Amino acid sequence: MTDPVLKNDRLIRALLRQPVDRTPIWIMRQAGRYLPEYRETRARAGSFMDLCRHPDLACEVTLQPLRRFDLDAAILFSDILTIPAAMGLGLDFVENEGPRFAKPIRTRSDVARLGVPDPERDLGYVLEAVRTIKRELGNRVPLIGFAGSPWTIATYMIEGGSSDDHRLARTMLYQEPATLHALLEVLARAVAEYLNGQIAAGVDVVQIFDTWGGILTPAAYREFSLRYMQAIMERLKRRSGTKIVPVILFTKGGGAWAETIAASGCDAMGLDWTVDLGDVRRRTEGKVALQGNLDPAVLHGSEAAIRSEAAAILAAYGRGPGHVFNLGHGISQHADPDRLKVLVDAVHDLSAPYHQG
Amino acid sequence: MTDPVLKNDRLIRALLRQPVDRTPIWIMRQAGRYLPEYRETRARAGSFMDLCRHPDLACEVTLQPLRRFDLDAAILFSDILTIPAAMGLGLDFVENEGPRFAKPIRTRSDVARLGVPDPERDLGYVLEAVRTIKRELGNRVPLIGFAGSPWTIATYMIEGGSSDDHRLARTMLYQEPATLHALLEVLARAVAEYLNGQIAAGVDVVQIFDTWGGILTPAAYREFSLRYMQAIMERLKRRSGTKIVPVILFTKGGGAWAETIAASGCDAMGLDWTVDLGDVRRRTEGKVALQGNLDPAVLHGSEAAIRSEAAAILAAYGRGPGHVFNLGHGISQHADPDRLKVLVDAVHDLSAPYHQG
Repeated sequence: MTDPVLKNDRLIRALLRQPVDRTPIWIMRQAGRYLPEYRETRARAGSFMDLCRHPDLACEVTLQPLRRFDLDAAILFSDILTIPAAMGLGLDFVENEGPRFAKPIRTRSDVARLGVPDPERDLGYVLEAVRTIKRELGNRVPLIGFAGSPWTIATYMIEGGSSDDHRLARTMLYQEPATLHALLEVLARAVAEYLNGQIAAGVDVVQIFDTWGGILTPAAYREFSLRYMQAIMERLKRRSGTKIVPVILFTKGGGAWAETIAASGCDAMGLDWTVDLGDVRRRTEGKVALQGNLDPAVLHGSEAAIRSEAAAILAAYGRGPGHVFNLGHGISQHADPDRLKVLVDAVHDLSAPYHQG
Repeated sequence: MTDPVLKNDRLIRALLRQPVDRTPIWIMRQAGRYLPEYRETRARAGSFMDLCRHPDLACEVTLQPLRRFDLDAAILFSDILTIPAAMGLGLDFVENEGPRFAKPIRTRSDVARLGVPDPERDLGYVLEAVRTIKRELGNRVPLIGFAGSPWTIATYMIEGGSSDDHRLARTMLYQEPATLHALLEVLARAVAEYLNGQIAAGVDVVQIFDTWGGILTPAAYREFSLRYMQAIMERLKRRSGTKIVPVILFTKGGGAWAETIAASGCDAMGLDWTVDLGDVRRRTEGKVALQGNLDPAVLHGSEAAIRSEAAAILAAYGRGPGHVFNLGHGISQHADPDRLKVLVDAVHDLSAPYHQG
């Protein structure tokens, strides 16, 4: 049932819990600042958003890590804030400070003015990047598309950028929950249409990044984050001809809610490094594939530490299909690319015995 | 078995899982910037550390919240970085940036130079503050003493201050674990002696703040954080005459490890707001008291939201002893004191039925 055209379909097979020869690996933020060739292309592009907006350049940085490492997937180079940018909030990336919105969302009337972007018209540069990358990839490995979760995107829209404590977003949650629900509803529709656009343009997998779901109480997580990710998953066109497009849901800090997330309709759950992968596998009883969950800081360690920590993750998951190796969060800009090569090769070498017999 | 002198011993009784009439409540960082009278005293003192170093001023700010709210405990006004300051690292608090160490700890020889501070000689200002506060309190409510966990203190010593990603500390963990263990060992001895000094000076409860334990993997948490907190608890003089001094262990982000923490030798476990209190109570089977766990952001909500969220926490814990109400983290400097009054009164009013019969 996986795309017969893909030369390396380990990732798709693992996400669908089908047998593989080795555990597939990709790395969150694998196209990024830790690579000198990325920094070179970024300097040529101008701003970070210029890089996202030029399909040829987005394609170039998407492919860069695949030239260095034996990765089992490419991931579209883009940003989770393309949607609010298309909604007209005035997105700018300030060097060393991160994203800034000229027009943050604070009131019910701010929310009422928001429309759902049309993917082809308003986010065509992303879909064009998908088509360019698919052409250049030549079906060597699958391409992962992505979006932010409604709650995660909403935090940036409300705060006006990054925040340590998400005070304004959490204040809206307890002070004006109806306004927050209205915002999340429009974002859920926007994300669903955007991901369907990416699927139509050719992505083979989609991941929803719920970077800030883990700052909520269990009840608020279900009401304000998971519920809207479920609404998205219900709207996704997860079959494209004979091809199945698996969905990965990654809530950073969501390990304690693994049972709930596993029942949400996703094919796979991404996990950060604060949980034991074997423990989560037992608690979710093979309902979903699991992705993760090496501490990104391990890449700052010795080669021996990298190998032994990778081995510990593989052993924690144990035998059989359904595991996709990844870090528990994006790779640090300070990581050494040579250390990442040690990790990728170690995962392929050390995982074979878990898939035999 | 609780101190017969205390007029309000609800906190001690709850920590020892003995019956109470109402659920006791205190608030992490209850003496702090959200109070105008605190800001006034702080301005008089000069720097933040000047406030800590003057027992009369530390006493004044410790007592301020008790004049406004019907709290069941006072907590010593001090800082978790008094120990590295006493070790000679050159602590400075930079306005709006937090703590800075002139001499951070990066190498094995840096660690080798560290000695264990003598509480009376090197941290006498803290013990004098304890004695002053106890005298002024007149046994109305218990006084909580505290220290940071070795791992949490170590992160600041290694980073040289606050950090978003704790990259240097986590690099040491994977690159030079023996150096980190040597640092944690000297800190565990220092914290144990410091807390024993506070107990001798009169504190009725101690809390260990493991603010950064939750950024570790489960295995690293046990090896680099919990293990040293256990070493401290083994060294604590938890009986002072007929008085029992309960120990609260608070690992922010540690809810997933509740079973392990409950077996560590603490009397009570502090919990942040990302876990369900009833779930943790079932998982820990009454082995320890539980403290928490209202989302601090609830205080930015409406009065109705404050009351309903407080009611939800009380209902989640359920009937019977062993619950201490608190926020899941320190109160925000932006909190409105009048809203905190609503919370404190709501907890006392709404909790009575859970303790009847």
